[in-house]
Amino acid sequence: MSTSSAASRRGDGTDAAQVRPPMRDALVAAAFRLFLERGYEQTTVDDIVALAGVGRRSFFRYFPSKEDVVFPDHERCLADMKAFLARSPEDADPVRQVCDAARLVLRMYAENPAFSVQRYHLTKKVPGLRAYELSVVWRYERALAEYLRGRLGGRPDGILRADVIAAAVVAAHNNALRSWLRSEGREDAAAAVDHALAFAQSAFGDVPVPPRGESPEDVVVVAARRGTPLWQVLREIESAF
Amino acid sequence: MSTSSAASRRGDGTDAAQVRPPMRDALVAAAFRLFLERGYEQTTVDDIVALAGVGRRSFFRYFPSKEDVVFPDHERCLADMKAFLARSPEDADPVRQVCDAARLVLRMYAENPAFSVQRYHLTKKVPGLRAYELSVVWRYERALAEYLRGRLGGRPDGILRADVIAAAVVAAHNNALRSWLRSEGREDAAAAVDHALAFAQSAFGDVPVPPRGESPEDVVVVAARRGTPLWQVLREIESAF
Repeated sequence: MSTSSAASRRGDGTDAAQVRPPMRDALVAAAFRLFLERGYEQTTVDDIVALAGVGRRSFFRYFPSKEDVVFPDHERCLADMKAFLARSPEDADPVRQVCDAARLVLRMYAENPAFSVQRYHLTKKVPGLRAYELSVVWRYERALAEYLRGRLGGRPDGILRADVIAAAVVAAHNNALRSWLRSEGREDAAAAVDHALAFAQSAFGDVPVPPRGESPEDVVVVAARRGTPLWQVLREIESAF
Repeated sequence: MSTSSAASRRGDGTDAAQVRPPMRDALVAAAFRLFLERGYEQTTVDDIVALAGVGRRSFFRYFPSKEDVVFPDHERCLADMKAFLARSPEDADPVRQVCDAARLVLRMYAENPAFSVQRYHLTKKVPGLRAYELSVVWRYERALAEYLRGRLGGRPDGILRADVIAAAVVAAHNNALRSWLRSEGREDAAAAVDHALAFAQSAFGDVPVPPRGESPEDVVVVAARRGTPLWQVLREIESAF
């Protein structure tokens, strides 16, 4: 499987960290300093803008709410994911594509391990942030499912497959991400997510869009316990073919 | 696969509808009448208790918040699900067990189709309710994953498998549930969910806990395109065995 082809390119060829406005970064830094010192609930938007030395309007120019400052890069990452999927080659394996798209999220977390680990601990403590995070995860999952529906929709159970594969890929990704966050960002994030996504991918196989005239039923799968007499396996294969 | 063994039994042998307090049902009925007439945001808890003819304290005795009255049966269903999983036989196939546990959710929706369809339309319109629903779905998924972690945790990648299978089962269930809700409750809900869960189950196979001394690697899976010469298939099988 490819390891991080998605993570190594960006649509615009630039590094997002360079084009992010400094005032936005200053607001995020001020917010996190206060969240860690006083607690999330005890910090107001007014406290954040006072520390950052800007006005309230500047805050709301970048962030619709206090919750959004905790997850400042998800909108960009979601847009990157959709752009990556939109430019997928027609003949690409759709399951592999959504795995590569999921790697973009890991890359965002791994860009700044200290910040990601801080946020992980904060999110565990604040129920409102966990709810916000669930809605973000749901949006990533929908983006993957939408792409898969487009690719698999014409096949029997295409919509069902799309939804289940998207959920499995997100769960595998998040399992690896959480394990990396619990290691305080010390584990190899890319290796952990590659391993987890390989499991999701193996469950659904390579799901190539079948060439015209060939139906998905044309692949025969036989499973047998090692030690089964060969004649018994052969009989099963013959009846399947 | 079993179709609805979980749905046909309850731990206490009683019908939940009979033991639910009438005041609680009256509050739910009053709330939904107002939500549909005036809109969810425009309805207050005071409006609901006035129409039901009870005091505010009675409302909060049954429901922690206005959102909870929209989903009055999830707590019971979650408890039923955990109880069902807790009493699963040791030798039961864990993937089949979580599929049966998921069927309990469908059964709750199918108990009262008109109410479920009303709520579906309401939830689609109110962002706060969608967020609440995501958190409920997450709790179901965690209940399935916890059980699977207990059963698969000792195996290689057991935690990863548990998380991915739980997510896939929930996604399959919800795909069928949404399709039933979109049909305004007219489709055969049980058939739809059986079909969807069969797909999730097929992706992860029967995952029996291997008997002592037998490792999971002792099952050989061979996949071949129909039409592959038999000698080629045989060669692959021989090398696998």
